[in-house]
Amino acid sequence: MCELLGMNANVPTDICFSFTGLIQRSGVTGQHRDGWGITFYEGKGVRTFKDADPGAKSRVARLVEDYPIKSCLVVSHIRKANRGRVCLENTHPFERELWGESWTMAHNGQLKGIKTKRLQYYHPIGTTDSEYAFCWLLDRMRRRHRHSPVRTTNFWLKLQADMNTLSHMGVFNALMGDGQYLYAYSSKQLYWITRRAPFGKARLIDKEVTVDFKKVTTDKDVVTVIATRPLTDNEQWTRVERHQLYVFRRGVLMFPKIK
Amino acid sequence: MCELLGMNANVPTDICFSFTGLIQRSGVTGQHRDGWGITFYEGKGVRTFKDADPGAKSRVARLVEDYPIKSCLVVSHIRKANRGRVCLENTHPFERELWGESWTMAHNGQLKGIKTKRLQYYHPIGTTDSEYAFCWLLDRMRRRHRHSPVRTTNFWLKLQADMNTLSHMGVFNALMGDGQYLYAYSSKQLYWITRRAPFGKARLIDKEVTVDFKKVTTDKDVVTVIATRPLTDNEQWTRVERHQLYVFRRGVLMFPKIK
Repeated sequence: MCELLGMNANVPTDICFSFTGLIQRSGVTGQHRDGWGITFYEGKGVRTFKDADPGAKSRVARLVEDYPIKSCLVVSHIRKANRGRVCLENTHPFERELWGESWTMAHNGQLKGIKTKRLQYYHPIGTTDSEYAFCWLLDRMRRRHRHSPVRTTNFWLKLQADMNTLSHMGVFNALMGDGQYLYAYSSKQLYWITRRAPFGKARLIDKEVTVDFKKVTTDKDVVTVIATRPLTDNEQWTRVERHQLYVFRRGVLMFPKIK
Repeated sequence: MCELLGMNANVPTDICFSFTGLIQRSGVTGQHRDGWGITFYEGKGVRTFKDADPGAKSRVARLVEDYPIKSCLVVSHIRKANRGRVCLENTHPFERELWGESWTMAHNGQLKGIKTKRLQYYHPIGTTDSEYAFCWLLDRMRRRHRHSPVRTTNFWLKLQADMNTLSHMGVFNALMGDGQYLYAYSSKQLYWITRRAPFGKARLIDKEVTVDFKKVTTDKDVVTVIATRPLTDNEQWTRVERHQLYVFRRGVLMFPKIK
């Protein structure tokens, strides 16, 4: 199984701490040796680092760990290949332009029969189920809306229905970004946490690293982190409800509405 | 004016030497301070590094200079902004999927009235003339061919005609890649050199660095480098003929046919 990591915040925030935990699972504390990738949104633009080599050994991963790239929206993935060989074009996150926006997706799971679905506008470059599913999701949104739609409950319900369709074909745990919103869907396993004032200390599970968020934040910061498995062992992570799309903006859960 | 750098080879080759020369022009020997980017193809996949900061100061640029990423096809760009503000989404190379292939383009020049042209499939994410022109070129190719066509003289003549149209709107010096082919077009200024056995020494213009290619190549290697201005001062660079598309594959000029 691959592992996912997403971040969404109301102020540009670096993800060095969480990424350091995740990347250990790509060759040290975990066996996800078949590549890794991370996408940072900066405004409407994206910056993606990826490698088909194990993350724990990658020089590019060292740069990302050490270099505090600040972003409000991050999507990341470490890969344990099951479908599609190990190569750069099969490395997540995948990226496409839709409505003049940069959309990215990282996925974990297998989707039986996904490649029988017809594609219209978007076509995979690599051979993974995941990229095919991403193309299909974008195709569906593009056929529904010719121009960039306002993101409302109606938009999210339709996206959720498409993700439910994928989920029925196997396992669909995924993170998606469009520059503003972070979308998270779990058919099996995904955890999230929102950090806000009063901030405290957090301790990584996969490496002996502790950070005191109080020292690096202001009282107004809201930062949500989503991961396949909790990254810290002294905080309360919440399981993402299965078959339910979660949408975050500026660190805050927008959908579903909390009762 | 921005500066372009492209490389096409028959064996995976690192571009550290040429990139070291180019990146000096982004803040040291030149004033192209408004960002830089470089795309490496690896198989069908691409890996892009970019930054809105001056290249000579960028930590990501340091990584690219030092880390020998080997590729048969590279497109790179350093930016001096004239249209479109300095931000990540306006940083070249731009990238889109067409026919399940990853297409990239870097451009220098301004194109008056480009934004009056109608776009169908591809839409710009940023605000540059360059990305708009790229979307228009891809639109034209996509409308001509529903599926990935064989690249022949006929294909290249039509692409050249589209580039001539752009050239008439201002200045269109550009490099484009599709995973296999490197396309170069100059309406003003672009130089190229093909290095093959017997290899010799080359000395950068912009930094005191000399490389002996004999030590890092085999007799079968063919490597073409294209740049806005020659990068070395002890080799013979050839000027790209204006309004003529040049197409390279495996380091060798495919189009126009040399008589």
